[in-house]
Amino acid sequence: MLLALFQQTRKYTESLCAPLNIEDYIPQAVDFTSPPKWHLAHTTWFFEEMILTKFLDGYAVFDAHFGFLFNSYYQSVGEKAVRAQRGLMTRPTVDQVYQYRHYVDEQIQRLLSKEVSESVKALITLGIHHEQQHQELLLTDLKYTLSLNPIAPVYQPNFNLVDSCNAGTSEEKHWLGVKEGVYEVGYAGDDFCFDNERGRHKVYLQNFEIASSLVTNGDYIEFIESGGYRTFSYWLDDGWSWLNSHNITAPLYWKNIDGEWHYYTLAGLKRVNKQAVLSHISYYEANAYAHWKKMRLPTEFEWEVASTQFEWGQRWEWTSSAYLPYPGFNISDGAVGEYNGKFMINQMVLRGASVATSENHSRATYRNFFAPHFQWQFSGLRLVK
Amino acid sequence: MLLALFQQTRKYTESLCAPLNIEDYIPQAVDFTSPPKWHLAHTTWFFEEMILTKFLDGYAVFDAHFGFLFNSYYQSVGEKAVRAQRGLMTRPTVDQVYQYRHYVDEQIQRLLSKEVSESVKALITLGIHHEQQHQELLLTDLKYTLSLNPIAPVYQPNFNLVDSCNAGTSEEKHWLGVKEGVYEVGYAGDDFCFDNERGRHKVYLQNFEIASSLVTNGDYIEFIESGGYRTFSYWLDDGWSWLNSHNITAPLYWKNIDGEWHYYTLAGLKRVNKQAVLSHISYYEANAYAHWKKMRLPTEFEWEVASTQFEWGQRWEWTSSAYLPYPGFNISDGAVGEYNGKFMINQMVLRGASVATSENHSRATYRNFFAPHFQWQFSGLRLVK
Amino acid sequence: MLLALFQQTRKYTESLCAPLNIEDYIPQAVDFTSPPKWHLAHTTWFFEEMILTKFLDGYAVFDAHFGFLFNSYYQSVGEKAVRAQRGLMTRPTVDQVYQYRHYVDEQIQRLLSKEVSESVKALITLGIHHEQQHQELLLTDLKYTLSLNPIAPVYQPNFNLVDSCNAGTSEEKHWLGVKEGVYEVGYAGDDFCFDNERGRHKVYLQNFEIASSLVTNGDYIEFIESGGYRTFSYWLDDGWSWLNSHNITAPLYWKNIDGEWHYYTLAGLKRVNKQAVLSHISYYEANAYAHWKKMRLPTEFEWEVASTQFEWGQRWEWTSSAYLPYPGFNISDGAVGEYNGKFMINQMVLRGASVATSENHSRATYRNFFAPHFQWQFSGLRLVK
Amino acid sequence: MLLALFQQTRKYTESLCAPLNIEDYIPQAVDFTSPPKWHLAHTTWFFEEMILTKFLDGYAVFDAHFGFLFNSYYQSVGEKAVRAQRGLMTRPTVDQVYQYRHYVDEQIQRLLSKEVSESVKALITLGIHHEQQHQELLLTDLKYTLSLNPIAPVYQPNFNLVDSCNAGTSEEKHWLGVKEGVYEVGYAGDDFCFDNERGRHKVYLQNFEIASSLVTNGDYIEFIESGGYRTFSYWLDDGWSWLNSHNITAPLYWKNIDGEWHYYTLAGLKRVNKQAVLSHISYYEANAYAHWKKMRLPTEFEWEVASTQFEWGQRWEWTSSAYLPYPGFNISDGAVGEYNGKFMINQMVLRGASVATSENHSRATYRNFFAPHFQWQFSGLRLVK
Repeated sequence: MLLALFQQTRKYTESLCAPLNIEDYIPQAVDFTSPPKWHLAHTTWFFEEMILTKFLDGYAVFDAHFGFLFNSYYQSVGEKAVRAQRGLMTRPTVDQVYQYRHYVDEQIQRLLSKEVSESVKALITLGIHHEQQHQELLLTDLKYTLSLNPIAPVYQPNFNLVDSCNAGTSEEKHWLGVKEGVYEVGYAGDDFCFDNERGRHKVYLQNFEIASSLVTNGDYIEFIESGGYRTFSYWLDDGWSWLNSHNITAPLYWKNIDGEWHYYTLAGLKRVNKQAVLSHISYYEANAYAHWKKMRLPTEFEWEVASTQFEWGQRWEWTSSAYLPYPGFNISDGAVGEYNGKFMINQMVLRGASVATSENHSRATYRNFFAPHFQWQFSGLRLVK
Repeated sequence: MLLALFQQTRKYTESLCAPLNIEDYIPQAVDFTSPPKWHLAHTTWFFEEMILTKFLDGYAVFDAHFGFLFNSYYQSVGEKAVRAQRGLMTRPTVDQVYQYRHYVDEQIQRLLSKEVSESVKALITLGIHHEQQHQELLLTDLKYTLSLNPIAPVYQPNFNLVDSCNAGTSEEKHWLGVKEGVYEVGYAGDDFCFDNERGRHKVYLQNFEIASSLVTNGDYIEFIESGGYRTFSYWLDDGWSWLNSHNITAPLYWKNIDGEWHYYTLAGLKRVNKQAVLSHISYYEANAYAHWKKMRLPTEFEWEVASTQFEWGQRWEWTSSAYLPYPGFNISDGAVGEYNGKFMINQMVLRGASVATSENHSRATYRNFFAPHFQWQFSGLRLVK
Repeated sequence: MLLALFQQTRKYTESLCAPLNIEDYIPQAVDFTSPPKWHLAHTTWFFEEMILTKFLDGYAVFDAHFGFLFNSYYQSVGEKAVRAQRGLMTRPTVDQVYQYRHYVDEQIQRLLSKEVSESVKALITLGIHHEQQHQELLLTDLKYTLSLNPIAPVYQPNFNLVDSCNAGTSEEKHWLGVKEGVYEVGYAGDDFCFDNERGRHKVYLQNFEIASSLVTNGDYIEFIESGGYRTFSYWLDDGWSWLNSHNITAPLYWKNIDGEWHYYTLAGLKRVNKQAVLSHISYYEANAYAHWKKMRLPTEFEWEVASTQFEWGQRWEWTSSAYLPYPGFNISDGAVGEYNGKFMINQMVLRGASVATSENHSRATYRNFFAPHFQWQFSGLRLVK
Repeated sequence: MLLALFQQTRKYTESLCAPLNIEDYIPQAVDFTSPPKWHLAHTTWFFEEMILTKFLDGYAVFDAHFGFLFNSYYQSVGEKAVRAQRGLMTRPTVDQVYQYRHYVDEQIQRLLSKEVSESVKALITLGIHHEQQHQELLLTDLKYTLSLNPIAPVYQPNFNLVDSCNAGTSEEKHWLGVKEGVYEVGYAGDDFCFDNERGRHKVYLQNFEIASSLVTNGDYIEFIESGGYRTFSYWLDDGWSWLNSHNITAPLYWKNIDGEWHYYTLAGLKRVNKQAVLSHISYYEANAYAHWKKMRLPTEFEWEVASTQFEWGQRWEWTSSAYLPYPGFNISDGAVGEYNGKFMINQMVLRGASVATSENHSRATYRNFFAPHFQWQFSGLRLVK
């Protein structure tokens, strides 16, 4: 069953690349995005480096250079330069990277053809979840890169599932109440979860009401048209600086053409669908919108406790919680340990999952996190009052 | 009594400037510091603008330009340029600024010679606390500016109270325990407090033990000498970037001269006193030190709850809490309202008070906050395990 | 004959791309380089925009978007952003760009199948020379991009003609004298030349002696090993800043591996050949080397007058002349006019031609020019005393 | 007579500071300007370091720190930081700097009371010319700093000599012709000149006509109002980038208030005098204006040869010559040698002198030079056709 899940995950990554030309595999638009080719190779390297080289007798690495090229754990200045230059690595070719994938796939299959220890199974499971994270990033990064092409290329003409067009909701919005008291938060089950979700613990919540549905594009256009981006008092001080230094006047990918709002989607340039759920906003924008509404964002614990009462999974939802460790959190040693703890500063937590998130990769306790100015993720907003 | 407190506060500010030459009143070393002259004028402007022009009949402003020059509430790019150029404002002269102070002092005295409303009293109280904040900043900023002079000038040869030299503690360190459970935090009394302390509310704390005393310079030298600044694994990812891009190898003002640690103090360049309490460290350094010790920093609520059990007041103490609003926090309208809420992003909370804090300006519920890379405040570190 | 030259030039460009994978056509390493795909398309666009759309009746543009994507004349900020993002343009594909080339080739052939005016012939000639310039840039830019790949890819294992490996000279160096007096400089013939070479005019030269051969890698290693890059007094003030802010310690592409100098070449990473002619140095380095030798660089007029006495054509040779207009120079109107005059500031003149220069594209009066910190061209150095 | 010239020069520097408050001596507005206090001290240090410590027996330096604080020859990064922090050096005080001046004055007087060698006389002469250069810079830098104060302070209410207000000319402009041929340029006499003027040599000039008078503010307003700052084609490529990245729309210090051009002068904010000679323009602006007029700037040799035919001395006049060494120029060894040669890159030559230039400090062969974007000097423009 683990092998089946492994194979299914690996295939799904490749299916996401089916609509691509070889040219599309190459560019890296900015430091924080990666080329499709890199995602394909890096997720493979994870299985090779963390599992095959350590637990498969007689394993021969596919290419000795790949460890350096497709590793993401950078500490020194020279290596950071390499990180910003992923888009310049024309060699190995796309074809060679697929050969690498298939070689590693076969070797994992060989490994799993015999009895393996629980810790090896746990590492393979981690690798699967790691690859699922990169499936989401592959789509998100690809959208970012393609959006910068003046001819607004189409990834898939009707790839609605991963885009912002038809993800809307028409149900009536209402308010869901939660009573003051002590609640338990954090992951409780026996399945896979990341280290930052562990350490289930009690928190004290005050009374609050949370919206049953997310803010829509139409809602947000009201904010824009009321002058929201020009009114200092709605914004955090850092947000106002960000706005002005980057000339931000709308969510990422939005463009006003002759008075009509359009946005770039993975199906090309489209008119903004007012009924659809808002996406590609920063924390600053989420916070300013809530302020304008005289409401606020939920904390991550309010969200987690209330999440049984509403549907979620279309957008990563900004919370008002900074990304900090749970009680008892310890950064584990080595590369696996660097996974999460290193980033617990200057980041805000998002809860939920998005239309780009792979199936079986979401949980109510999942903690995503980004710096407050990031817009490139499929991020949205739910109000609390 | 309010008048007496007002006059005492105003005099104390001027007494801090007694050791200065006129030259010392002028420079602004970096964007986030201000010249002594500006602190003297800005605190005065606050009383003029918020109180005298609104509540004293027939009040004539001292100089119509001063509102623009000594206001700190900036929204537009042009005004931000002015913020970074406070050190270029050679006119009005220092003498004129003192005249401005004395004029406003007399007018406040005139206002208080008659019955005034509670809201006016509240504003004067706010102005006094505002000036006390600037007294601390005046010293902190001055230390920063003077430290950049290669000849390490002396502010006061024996001004021990405001400096890091002799603030040490020799008492035995021990661990103070706090039991898991629901606690109340936030300001409870009837006296003055800032808006960010209000909204007393319940929180749930886990069991923890907190150190009775702060980390000393001697403790920290062990960290440095063990290679702490060169070991990636102790540091947050952002902290490691900061370290490397700014070549940080020790707390601010520290300098290794022929193998011996020295630091710049307001009494000049001195050998580091190993018994004295550590100061001028960033959150990144505090966090890395705790990580190296296999311990952690307290949250702001752990600190507040435990603070009755230990002495504090020498250093602002970094906590592991991000600066976020308390339940029910509302940003008030207008300039007074911009006081705190605008900054609730990308900042960590410090609790306590420091040797540079004015008397009567500290409370256990007081929330100071800075971005995690700031070292210029008298900031220190208390461990939790 | 013009058609034959046109076709031969067009084919040669494509032959330079024969060793490339599709992946190699995409990346743009830095602002001042362009991807192979862009060079292929831009040179084609020049013929379409300057000639076919104006002089071929009924000409239909291949794709209306291409004018925007492959134009290099940028004036506004938005367009400059596009310039830095040539490496993100994965669509149109490489295949579509080749179709574009062949379509334009056929149309030019159609145009030339009838009588055309002299001015059309002149424009086609200009287009041919323009494409030859881009042939050189294609190789130079490609080398730059590939050099940033940690695996040092091979463009052609024995592509000696365009690389720095075997271009050395073993002949004895001697000094060639030129007598003081009035000389004529600038283009004199009836063939093609660029506008910046026109305006043949008299200059007065002093006595000088110029080296018969260029400085070699071996010569330059002596400068490096004598501490040349660490000695302030050899360098121009701007050059010293450049050196220190970019950590320059050798010519571009050089790397010291275990005490042995290597360089990246289009045939991969090789040991530096000491007999070969030095390449990839900035003006700052050329000037510092000459200063160290207590000699100097020639002016562009000294070089031009003396050039009949020595062989040249392996390296672009830095001169000590700033790039400025000749007497009577006028910037022509329109896009063609922007060719050269716009850049007559903060650039130094190089004379000669290099191993990457296309055949029939060099003249003794040719004026190449770059900012003094540029190293990515095949630039070298000839001494004068 | 040398002593008299020395004393007169030293006094004149101090007389320029007579209108200053102590506060005005302190700030450094940008890296390329220096505070009055620094100019006072640095010119003094030159006499101490280059002459007194070497040639006056038993000379005791005034303060051992001053060599480091007031030296301008920086090579390392740490020292460059100090250069940008001249405005933070509140100690030594202004009073101490005057004591330093008077101490050095007395010692020079003591030195000159006995016979001294020709080389010592030459160094004192160099020190006098060095101080005259700093007199001009003192005024120019002061104007820059004061201009950034929103209250536009007055240095001297009727200090017309050093400002741009009443320096106009009403005489009829006419064109002066120079015939093609060989001319001699460079310093010829026996008096003092800088090393960059030496090496009198022959140049060949073409026929040209040069304007008898400088461009006026009124002339330049026509250029502005015709859209000159918004028309790409008039500008050098680098100039257009500079314009756009710095939002330049007029000469430095100009401000359009309700449709009327004003400028900051050392006598405060004034309406622009249209008859007065244009000042505070960059090379880019000078070049664009000439281009708009379908004329050009003179080369430095055209200017020098023609200068006997017109009056000059109000503005430094931009020429179209890059700042490069004359034939036979050698950079002398040591600190004195670094005077000029280090800067012979990326700078354009200005000829003439300005209203801020000290008496006896101008010659027709004098070569001033600045990077093409500098506006803060009293720079103007004379046309050639």
